[in-house]
Amino acid sequence: MQWYQFLTDQQVAQVHETSLQILETVGIDFRYPPALEILKKGGAKVEGERVFFPSQLVEAQIKKAPAEFTLYGRSSDVDVVLGGDHMAYIPGYGAPFVTDLDNGRRAGSLQDFENFVKLTQASPHQDICSGMVIEPNDVPHGIRHAHMIYAAMKYSEKPFMGSAMGAQGAKDSIQMASILFGTQDQLAEKPRMISILGSLTPLVYDERMLGAIIEYARAGQPQLISSLVIAGATGPTTMAGTLALQNAEILAGIVLTQLVREGTPVVFSGSSSNTEMRSGALSIGSPEMAVNAAATAQMARFYHLPVRGGGAISDAKVPDAQAAYESMMSLLMAQVCGINFVLHSAGILESYSCMSYEKFIIDDEICGMVKRIKNAYAVSADTLALDVIKAVGPGGHFLDQDHTFDHFRTEFYQPVLSNRDNFDTWIENGSQQILQTANKRLKQVLAEYCEPDLPADADKELKRFIDTLE
Amino acid sequence: MQWYQFLTDQQVAQVHETSLQILETVGIDFRYPPALEILKKGGAKVEGERVFFPSQLVEAQIKKAPAEFTLYGRSSDVDVVLGGDHMAYIPGYGAPFVTDLDNGRRAGSLQDFENFVKLTQASPHQDICSGMVIEPNDVPHGIRHAHMIYAAMKYSEKPFMGSAMGAQGAKDSIQMASILFGTQDQLAEKPRMISILGSLTPLVYDERMLGAIIEYARAGQPQLISSLVIAGATGPTTMAGTLALQNAEILAGIVLTQLVREGTPVVFSGSSSNTEMRSGALSIGSPEMAVNAAATAQMARFYHLPVRGGGAISDAKVPDAQAAYESMMSLLMAQVCGINFVLHSAGILESYSCMSYEKFIIDDEICGMVKRIKNAYAVSADTLALDVIKAVGPGGHFLDQDHTFDHFRTEFYQPVLSNRDNFDTWIENGSQQILQTANKRLKQVLAEYCEPDLPADADKELKRFIDTLE
Repeated sequence: MQWYQFLTDQQVAQVHETSLQILETVGIDFRYPPALEILKKGGAKVEGERVFFPSQLVEAQIKKAPAEFTLYGRSSDVDVVLGGDHMAYIPGYGAPFVTDLDNGRRAGSLQDFENFVKLTQASPHQDICSGMVIEPNDVPHGIRHAHMIYAAMKYSEKPFMGSAMGAQGAKDSIQMASILFGTQDQLAEKPRMISILGSLTPLVYDERMLGAIIEYARAGQPQLISSLVIAGATGPTTMAGTLALQNAEILAGIVLTQLVREGTPVVFSGSSSNTEMRSGALSIGSPEMAVNAAATAQMARFYHLPVRGGGAISDAKVPDAQAAYESMMSLLMAQVCGINFVLHSAGILESYSCMSYEKFIIDDEICGMVKRIKNAYAVSADTLALDVIKAVGPGGHFLDQDHTFDHFRTEFYQPVLSNRDNFDTWIENGSQQILQTANKRLKQVLAEYCEPDLPADADKELKRFIDTLE
Repeated sequence: MQWYQFLTDQQVAQVHETSLQILETVGIDFRYPPALEILKKGGAKVEGERVFFPSQLVEAQIKKAPAEFTLYGRSSDVDVVLGGDHMAYIPGYGAPFVTDLDNGRRAGSLQDFENFVKLTQASPHQDICSGMVIEPNDVPHGIRHAHMIYAAMKYSEKPFMGSAMGAQGAKDSIQMASILFGTQDQLAEKPRMISILGSLTPLVYDERMLGAIIEYARAGQPQLISSLVIAGATGPTTMAGTLALQNAEILAGIVLTQLVREGTPVVFSGSSSNTEMRSGALSIGSPEMAVNAAATAQMARFYHLPVRGGGAISDAKVPDAQAAYESMMSLLMAQVCGINFVLHSAGILESYSCMSYEKFIIDDEICGMVKRIKNAYAVSADTLALDVIKAVGPGGHFLDQDHTFDHFRTEFYQPVLSNRDNFDTWIENGSQQILQTANKRLKQVLAEYCEPDLPADADKELKRFIDTLE
């Protein structure tokens, strides 16, 4: 497999060098004393909150993170390898609002969160339960994270995401994972969750993120170290400068994880994009975002680290053509440039502000299509089919060949939503609209959803743990 | 630039070898005596209509076609280079039906054809006028081709496509081009048009296509030699076998062009896809089509030939989310795998059966986004922006930097249709739907369209020529 790459090796090195200069001469503010202590002890120069990283320190620490690791599910069928040429899909994360055709747009609730966990569990294409698909606004702020983790455990057996709510959120996530999966040592040995933590661009890490980074790293838990530079607002207007800034921030975070615990699994996570200059707002459906994903993948490969980028990300307000072309752009780009962790792979509208149930179903179809493209095909005497071509000959047809019956089920992607009827048949069948088809499919998936087994004693103990937080 | 590639060099060679075996041992039917004569004289073994190609013949002739050539417009601004890492967009081709929001779906007319020429001329993203965007059903069959070529000349100064209606269609196309652009020698020196000609899969070339191939080759006119294998129907169900069959057919056609006139410019044109097994119909919005485009690009590079593939192709009946994700899939795939000639880059619905005005406008936006991705970015001291990052520092902002004002206009793609407002602003502005926005934009483009100059004497002579056909 040769990934799509537009940066030359020399340009990758140039971006790397620029990042090292940023880290060494501009520095990054770490607004959390324990982080400052660790970094100082590790060899960084600390002046107040500002941390300057010698290049040697950065290069030495980055090497310690693994190139590939596994997140384990409750069944080995759903284990997920992150790194190499593996690709994992993880639905939308962090939307305050939710929408569907029946109920319209509203604040998200725990019920919505649970529904999205169920949709994730039921999907053959989504690999990991996202951490905060929507904000469960009906749950008190201080215990939301625990309810989300419980829901992920109860309604899915796939790996899941931990809380990003500071040191306490991380501790609670680890504790809950321990209740279900064993001791912290066992958890470090066989990680079950991954959390997304990141910088406050430009060049700041705050207490909330640093608290969580340190706790997770202490427990050897995987984390995405993430930077989202908004070119033209929180970063330079040039995408090359944005990449260098993103790179510096990610490297700094990864250095911290390795100083806390050598070998902590990390994912190099860049989701920078550009500002819409008329409004100053972030645009995530822009081609610049896709370009940045491809560049981020190249940088991560340079460091031999798993990489996050792409997603079914869109600035559209409804699951229309705009939502679809933006989502396909970023999902397909993620595949062809070799992204390993595709966060926001289903449901996102409004530049991360809203999750749409119908868009989740549509994006899941796109994910299936992109996975089919990823699998490409085997080349062998059987698949090259010279004998079949000989047997059929000029002007013949292949429909009734045994070879056809042997292969079509596995060779061709079977769409769930895409309509391939001709116009007349489509009219006869009531000229189905894709949004309605998605809505119908959504209800069918939720109706047919099967809850996985959660051991009764663990279930009880998890509930008791949540009670202690309330 | 490193294109996306999934076949290994060895697999490319295997496909090539299989194609040679098909050509040597199965053979291809050429249903046109002049073609049989040329091929026999060139060294092929001919038995009745069946032609068997020795491998040496194929390998020797393929080398004679140029790796890159230019199509000239009426102004040098619109010249198009085909080959290398150049990419050209050419709108939909061959649809019998046309549709728009105002008038609904109907048979295409000459007026529709002219409108699409105008939209092509006005678009900054479409590079060549397509040959038969829609069938002008209101023009008598025998003279349709001449009216379409006249419309392409009158309403656009971009390069255009010639007729595929047999030897006569080709002769008429060449004659009309000569009226406007000079002698046939001048036309061969500076080609103005390209035509799409292809096989009747599996393994047949008919009189209509062969007549045109030979006429255009005699005149040194560029042509796409095209194969559309429908995996599971007119080809093996395995995409590898489909690729080998497609490859054999394209090679055979190219051999003929080079035997007629060495150095005739050709584009290696593969648009194979799979059958929807439930209905037996062609699916063009399938992931298998995108996979085939990537493989076709690899085969063409192996032969050092310009390549055609991809497009804004869809099986959807309306310009909805399905139309958009299918179109973006094939347009983006064409870019990342290095396709040079992207036919059907705007407007296609219903598996080639219908052109949608609004979809043309939407696809044109997608083409703009993909071109932005193709242009990626320069990496330099200025674009890496270390000084700007230093000046802003941790926690600062970039909006008021000179660097931002210097770069944002060229660095960021400015969408025409995509809505990036937040939800509240979008509601305040009347919750615009993309189809309505596209419809409005369509009317604006047609209203603002400027007709290029067509020299009055050539105009008169072209009209006189058409009269002689009637």
